[in-house]
Amino acid sequence: MDRERLADLLAAVQGGRCSVDAALERLRDLPYEDLGFAKLDHHRGLRNGFPEVVFAQGKAPEQIVAIAQHLAASGGNVLVTRLDAAAAGELCAALPAFAYHREARVAVLRQHEPPTLADGPVLVVSAGTADLPVAEEAVATAEIMGNRVERLYDVGVAGIHRLLAERERLWQAAVVIVVAGMEGALPSVVGGLVSCPVVAVPTSVGYGASFHGLAALLGMLNTCAAGVVVVNIDNGFGAAAAATRIVRRRERGRNA
Amino acid sequence: MDRERLADLLAAVQGGRCSVDAALERLRDLPYEDLGFAKLDHHRGLRNGFPEVVFAQGKAPEQIVAIAQHLAASGGNVLVTRLDAAAAGELCAALPAFAYHREARVAVLRQHEPPTLADGPVLVVSAGTADLPVAEEAVATAEIMGNRVERLYDVGVAGIHRLLAERERLWQAAVVIVVAGMEGALPSVVGGLVSCPVVAVPTSVGYGASFHGLAALLGMLNTCAAGVVVVNIDNGFGAAAAATRIVRRRERGRNA
Amino acid sequence: MDRERLADLLAAVQGGRCSVDAALERLRDLPYEDLGFAKLDHHRGLRNGFPEVVFAQGKAPEQIVAIAQHLAASGGNVLVTRLDAAAAGELCAALPAFAYHREARVAVLRQHEPPTLADGPVLVVSAGTADLPVAEEAVATAEIMGNRVERLYDVGVAGIHRLLAERERLWQAAVVIVVAGMEGALPSVVGGLVSCPVVAVPTSVGYGASFHGLAALLGMLNTCAAGVVVVNIDNGFGAAAAATRIVRRRERGRNA
Amino acid sequence: MDRERLADLLAAVQGGRCSVDAALERLRDLPYEDLGFAKLDHHRGLRNGFPEVVFAQGKAPEQIVAIAQHLAASGGNVLVTRLDAAAAGELCAALPAFAYHREARVAVLRQHEPPTLADGPVLVVSAGTADLPVAEEAVATAEIMGNRVERLYDVGVAGIHRLLAERERLWQAAVVIVVAGMEGALPSVVGGLVSCPVVAVPTSVGYGASFHGLAALLGMLNTCAAGVVVVNIDNGFGAAAAATRIVRRRERGRNA
Amino acid sequence: MDRERLADLLAAVQGGRCSVDAALERLRDLPYEDLGFAKLDHHRGLRNGFPEVVFAQGKAPEQIVAIAQHLAASGGNVLVTRLDAAAAGELCAALPAFAYHREARVAVLRQHEPPTLADGPVLVVSAGTADLPVAEEAVATAEIMGNRVERLYDVGVAGIHRLLAERERLWQAAVVIVVAGMEGALPSVVGGLVSCPVVAVPTSVGYGASFHGLAALLGMLNTCAAGVVVVNIDNGFGAAAAATRIVRRRERGRNA
Amino acid sequence: MDRERLADLLAAVQGGRCSVDAALERLRDLPYEDLGFAKLDHHRGLRNGFPEVVFAQGKAPEQIVAIAQHLAASGGNVLVTRLDAAAAGELCAALPAFAYHREARVAVLRQHEPPTLADGPVLVVSAGTADLPVAEEAVATAEIMGNRVERLYDVGVAGIHRLLAERERLWQAAVVIVVAGMEGALPSVVGGLVSCPVVAVPTSVGYGASFHGLAALLGMLNTCAAGVVVVNIDNGFGAAAAATRIVRRRERGRNA
Amino acid sequence: MDRERLADLLAAVQGGRCSVDAALERLRDLPYEDLGFAKLDHHRGLRNGFPEVVFAQGKAPEQIVAIAQHLAASGGNVLVTRLDAAAAGELCAALPAFAYHREARVAVLRQHEPPTLADGPVLVVSAGTADLPVAEEAVATAEIMGNRVERLYDVGVAGIHRLLAERERLWQAAVVIVVAGMEGALPSVVGGLVSCPVVAVPTSVGYGASFHGLAALLGMLNTCAAGVVVVNIDNGFGAAAAATRIVRRRERGRNA
Amino acid sequence: MDRERLADLLAAVQGGRCSVDAALERLRDLPYEDLGFAKLDHHRGLRNGFPEVVFAQGKAPEQIVAIAQHLAASGGNVLVTRLDAAAAGELCAALPAFAYHREARVAVLRQHEPPTLADGPVLVVSAGTADLPVAEEAVATAEIMGNRVERLYDVGVAGIHRLLAERERLWQAAVVIVVAGMEGALPSVVGGLVSCPVVAVPTSVGYGASFHGLAALLGMLNTCAAGVVVVNIDNGFGAAAAATRIVRRRERGRNA
Repeated sequence: MDRERLADLLAAVQGGRCSVDAALERLRDLPYEDLGFAKLDHHRGLRNGFPEVVFAQGKAPEQIVAIAQHLAASGGNVLVTRLDAAAAGELCAALPAFAYHREARVAVLRQHEPPTLADGPVLVVSAGTADLPVAEEAVATAEIMGNRVERLYDVGVAGIHRLLAERERLWQAAVVIVVAGMEGALPSVVGGLVSCPVVAVPTSVGYGASFHGLAALLGMLNTCAAGVVVVNIDNGFGAAAAATRIVRRRERGRNA
Repeated sequence: MDRERLADLLAAVQGGRCSVDAALERLRDLPYEDLGFAKLDHHRGLRNGFPEVVFAQGKAPEQIVAIAQHLAASGGNVLVTRLDAAAAGELCAALPAFAYHREARVAVLRQHEPPTLADGPVLVVSAGTADLPVAEEAVATAEIMGNRVERLYDVGVAGIHRLLAERERLWQAAVVIVVAGMEGALPSVVGGLVSCPVVAVPTSVGYGASFHGLAALLGMLNTCAAGVVVVNIDNGFGAAAAATRIVRRRERGRNA
Repeated sequence: MDRERLADLLAAVQGGRCSVDAALERLRDLPYEDLGFAKLDHHRGLRNGFPEVVFAQGKAPEQIVAIAQHLAASGGNVLVTRLDAAAAGELCAALPAFAYHREARVAVLRQHEPPTLADGPVLVVSAGTADLPVAEEAVATAEIMGNRVERLYDVGVAGIHRLLAERERLWQAAVVIVVAGMEGALPSVVGGLVSCPVVAVPTSVGYGASFHGLAALLGMLNTCAAGVVVVNIDNGFGAAAAATRIVRRRERGRNA
Repeated sequence: MDRERLADLLAAVQGGRCSVDAALERLRDLPYEDLGFAKLDHHRGLRNGFPEVVFAQGKAPEQIVAIAQHLAASGGNVLVTRLDAAAAGELCAALPAFAYHREARVAVLRQHEPPTLADGPVLVVSAGTADLPVAEEAVATAEIMGNRVERLYDVGVAGIHRLLAERERLWQAAVVIVVAGMEGALPSVVGGLVSCPVVAVPTSVGYGASFHGLAALLGMLNTCAAGVVVVNIDNGFGAAAAATRIVRRRERGRNA
Repeated sequence: MDRERLADLLAAVQGGRCSVDAALERLRDLPYEDLGFAKLDHHRGLRNGFPEVVFAQGKAPEQIVAIAQHLAASGGNVLVTRLDAAAAGELCAALPAFAYHREARVAVLRQHEPPTLADGPVLVVSAGTADLPVAEEAVATAEIMGNRVERLYDVGVAGIHRLLAERERLWQAAVVIVVAGMEGALPSVVGGLVSCPVVAVPTSVGYGASFHGLAALLGMLNTCAAGVVVVNIDNGFGAAAAATRIVRRRERGRNA
Repeated sequence: MDRERLADLLAAVQGGRCSVDAALERLRDLPYEDLGFAKLDHHRGLRNGFPEVVFAQGKAPEQIVAIAQHLAASGGNVLVTRLDAAAAGELCAALPAFAYHREARVAVLRQHEPPTLADGPVLVVSAGTADLPVAEEAVATAEIMGNRVERLYDVGVAGIHRLLAERERLWQAAVVIVVAGMEGALPSVVGGLVSCPVVAVPTSVGYGASFHGLAALLGMLNTCAAGVVVVNIDNGFGAAAAATRIVRRRERGRNA
Repeated sequence: MDRERLADLLAAVQGGRCSVDAALERLRDLPYEDLGFAKLDHHRGLRNGFPEVVFAQGKAPEQIVAIAQHLAASGGNVLVTRLDAAAAGELCAALPAFAYHREARVAVLRQHEPPTLADGPVLVVSAGTADLPVAEEAVATAEIMGNRVERLYDVGVAGIHRLLAERERLWQAAVVIVVAGMEGALPSVVGGLVSCPVVAVPTSVGYGASFHGLAALLGMLNTCAAGVVVVNIDNGFGAAAAATRIVRRRERGRNA
Repeated sequence: MDRERLADLLAAVQGGRCSVDAALERLRDLPYEDLGFAKLDHHRGLRNGFPEVVFAQGKAPEQIVAIAQHLAASGGNVLVTRLDAAAAGELCAALPAFAYHREARVAVLRQHEPPTLADGPVLVVSAGTADLPVAEEAVATAEIMGNRVERLYDVGVAGIHRLLAERERLWQAAVVIVVAGMEGALPSVVGGLVSCPVVAVPTSVGYGASFHGLAALLGMLNTCAAGVVVVNIDNGFGAAAAATRIVRRRERGRNA
């Protein structure tokens, strides 16, 4: 399409309908506007079921509502993350079509079904019950992005048999997202059990020398399981986005 | 197969060829030996072209040689990482079939062709020339694991046009590994340009407030590009292993 | 002038109108009072349009009001920074001539027009919308110091085309202030696009391993773009003061 | 005994064989010399098989030799820790009765059999082969302190089945010392498998974000396994001393 | 017992009462369910007087109540830690049999007497009065786990005579738990006075460069007293659990 | 005196008025009780005008009142530090003789005049107005300990002439306490101007990369002015106690 | 020029000498190659006297020589930074036209006079003699970039009179670069004395709690002098590049 | 004296022997040159026995020799600190009058007796033998500054009786310098035993989580003993300089 617009311009020059100077002026912005990356992404995003995303933390409720209204008007799905209950109340009052997931602290506006990705599932594993808010953020994000999602919760390494009992489910996952706080050891064990991609999410669960998730983060970065990758502390959204990059690519490969 | 061995044992009990006590003794080790994870991994590893890996750092040259000989005897490919030139000299003197990549600090014993993965390529991108040792470790690792690998070097963000000129190659990659030191900003830019998985590798390149790669690591963990994932500082091996988890899974998906 | 006052004093001694002892007494304070640095700065500040500045954080509202009244009495412009809404309410109730910028958390008393600096503009660039409070603090500070100011917001590196679309505005700036949180990568990209001075301001925007702006700060200090300089986390005021030092000096150079 | 010496002194005063002044003078040092803690410890140490210990790091070889000679003269066993090969050469040349353990970097002078502690064993578990120097320091220390010691090496969490295969040995240990670098996750898993005391030793094995053992240390301190305790990074000696405190106390309890 | 169940299964196969396929199905879960670790631990825990433990921090009051009800129904003792006064109010309203220790922030449900451990006592030592919440958490935990517990409070190192006056009590302890904030020096002094196990608990008491307990933690890890072990900051529960591992093991040793 | 009591005891043994066993019993506590350090300190404290000190932070108001009542009953002066306004209200309601200094957050009970120390004064210097709470804590502490105290406020290094104007006062001080936040540079400048002892107090004043006073603390520890000493962040009390150690010792020297 | 090439292309299309498709192909690379940023920078760099820069740290001598030869061939000036004496020996042997500054650790190839910038001077100030290598790197860099440079060394804050004696030189500078290690206080004092731009360079000079320059860096970032800016630790090159951005811009302003 | 010179100048103006312009010229430098601080310090330094000090670390041997020669020529005493054996060899070869203390790493040139300070002694206490280099640096510094110095070594807190045995010596000291690495607990204990000034010196002795002295530094800053002050890690020189400030001032007080 953009290529077409560029060809049109050149044809107009060729046909004398556009002067060289006028073409020069229009070409000045070509590299980013007519061939622009964001716009293409936006279109592909809508086609692939990707939602628009609002990071609510640090925004005033009225700002969140305004942005959400703007995005909702485009007709696509909208995901609002890091949304506390008070702001969620204002959002849902203004835009009742939003569904709020209290534990995950996300609100979702689903205006059309995201095209289901055939591969999967994305398995979200958590070490303890205190990690659930982050795990649920990953679940909600992965679902609105079109993934089949499964949960496997409370399988921390201090009771390793709980995890081993679920080896089958681990082996069937397309991607495993492992959410853990405290010492952050679970991704190393999972990484040793499966050969699929493993995305580790450290959480700020803990106290004292956990230093708000630093201990779990360092543990995951130093994993002895080859090929485990890490996202920011408490970043359930980012882990789900990474999983979607992986699964979606595979979809494309399959269809190619 | 393991299931078969277990069925054989049970049939032997059923048929009276094995006493309950003898079966009990053999079953004691079942959870790990007969259904064991490492062995299965080992077999699958050989089938899939995965090499055995030796992390040489902190090992004496004679230890490295001994381990390498043991692994070579199994007939598979062998990868030795973090191998300095002196130890490499001893290794290659003892085992001349090993090829040493000085810049990547890895030695590779290729006893059979790793089965080429159809998907790909894995594109290894580096910000500066000083990041090459880490980038080359990723390249060597990815290649011996069966990936098609391409390089795109010296495209740091302070000269952003160098990166933009290669958008096509970025778009065609199955996975992009981005290697960068100093401020570690490159993965954010790449993550905004492509929709495939992006694995970021911070390097210890820099000085002063880079704090041996901490600056790049923190930068990458805080990327504003959704779904970029991170491995440990200077961990080119880990990034390639992660990429292989992604590509190999896709292979399986394609064949399913 | 101060030199004149000193000459007057000496002439008075010479002429016998002032005893040696009285002169000694007055000279005791000379190094700082009559030749003093602060006072000269103060005078020059008034001439050049520099405001008096109050850092409100950690001060009680009544203290802020008292200081502001004292400074307002001098007839110059007054800038109050880091002023929360509650304290601003008290300030504006007591001194209605103050204008409060809620997002920038600054209050400004404009008792005369600051002499417009001919050079410019100072271009304030921000990576994301969450960085706006810091960016607006820089804008308000730069304006009351006499600069022409322009804004270029929400051009973070994960959508690099948004920045590239504004190259012309970047190229026309006298100084660029770049405000960014999270990974803090934007100043590196901007620094590679322009040859004018670039002042980077890390913000505490982010979570987890951003460690309250540490990630952005380290990223900016390790920039691979030569000659980018950095101020403290969230220090929009300081960046604007630095820009003013640069532009004002240039003014002087032009007039010399 | 010390009480006896004190009673003797008082009886001498009572009997007029010692003046009040002379007694005062002798009593001045009582709190620490005659009732002193170090001396009692020293005597008890000899009885219990505790060696004298020299921390060699940062001492010149001639200093180490001199101290070792002094201690050897007392007739007890002597343990020298953190002794590099060069200094060990000088020590063994001067005092050939010392045996040097190169991997553990300790030298031991065994002048009498330490009284074997009936309880036990102390089981030293290590995650990887690179942790062996620290693990062996623990082994050598525990042995010279009279413990029965067993080893269980290379059972890191990325291949959890290797550990599970040795549950029986874990269950039979009196104390388990777990030595691990990188992410330091092994003590959490072991702590969930056994009910005996578990002493975790982080090692500086790793690179990048391991920050010389900080990652493993923080991981172990944040263990989700209740009652796992931690010593300093690379402190195999300290872990063995802790284990000996535990086992020896138990001995006393048994004999009481 | 589990061995018996496994033998039963094999006998059923042998006797034809169970097909090979059915046995295979049941054996699939054996490694963790029938020979499972958690369940055994659970049974042993009940026999030994170990309570079920709920970590209340970060849980909603209704969640705490629900979990406590579930655990109480099993008939065992229940310990809830890190329970603030508001949540404790809801818990005790719902389950009046719980006793709340405000200072220790724990609630205890004692449905049967924990079997008293013959060895002991566990001596809990604190440096200052501000360390009492952590010390009392250790006391409450140790008591519900069946230990005899004694207290020795406010014996910080700046008034060392207070500690020395209590040498006898220190010498009679089976395990000493030392709780200290600020510089965390007390465990080093205690470790030099006693030969029994010493568990050090750093607290977050302090300000400025205590960095929320980091100073005390580092001090304790670097203790010059051989064999002192450390748990996480403010982790009185963990120290008591460690002490119980030590004492209980000794019990077993004694009975063997 | 204590020596006398010990001589009395020995004489009683010598004279048969005390049995050896009774003397042994009494001697058991000698090292700390009869020759005890705290008690002597306590007496000397009362004689020298030292107050009893209560660190209120983290204590409940009723605890503070109870402790203060207990100390007040001894007839000496009492100092309560880190006392917020609410707790101060309760304290002064219960014990109206306490005077509360709101800015310094201390309450003082002055039941007798502390004996004025002849040497002095202690000069408390602060860099900015935001440092006043810490500076005033130092002032109140030094005064109740008997020092003559002078203030020199708002002489930060960015307006160095303000400090230089007060050289005379600096030169006349017995000890200078320098209180500064942000970059903490003032002690270096003061240390270069005076030859008397200089005690530096970093404050947590600042934001961003001040990291709650860490920047000022590190700056002061790295001072290029020889012999400047440092106390904890915000520790005005400690600085005054250090100054009192210095001045009081000098008093003793003078009287000797 | 690039505009001309674009106009030529369009004219060729207009004139039928180039097909639309061929033009499309050529335009594909336009954004970066024909309108490219680096190339324009390169040309402007040559015109303005900017050297090509090689960062030698971490490069092998033969790599440095090869790169330097390549750059030298372009006819411009070349600057090699962070070059140790050994590598410098090899460089100067291969390319004798390079001049090596041992203290600054830079080598300079001056193939033409950089066009002198009329404004100035850039004044490089250092706190102590140990800061000279970094200061001299700034000097050498600023000179080869065309600046007039002056030095003012050894004027640290512990002898503040040394700095005050040079007020005149400070006042006459166009930009002041302040290089300081240890507590890094000098930029604050200088920033209070001058109104021109001040670029602060922390150095790694110091020991202990300087943490390799962290103390100086934090001090400078927290400066109480408004508008002082900071570069990375030991980054004399970056400070000079920043100063050149400032001065060069002013030049342009003057000529406009 | 300086006042006299100023009066002379004014009288010369009054008497017509000096023109107003000439006086102006001379007065320009008054604040720092004629009333200068360094010069006065220098004179007073010579009178008081203060040596000139050279910090050798990071200086080339030839630089050290040159500076030492320059200082020696002034006739005063000279102290060179942080001098390794190789550089000391060159220094003593060039200037044989220097005496080198190998353990303290200082060289001293004693050209006249420093005037003995009547008060004292300065007692240097060390925790372990590994702390001796720092302790001896303090001793050598304090001695060349005119103090009586005593040593009390190897009295670490893990054997507290060793310290208590020396209470008398502690009580007789004018100032106590306490040197300790590892957990840095000794100053707290000493601070509780004495009422004189206590200067704490953390050392980098230790390993693992000592983080090169950080643990000891934080411990000392958080001391619970009121009024203990701290200097930089390994800064024996600074502690002695602080002690001299304290003792010298007392001298002046006594003579006043």
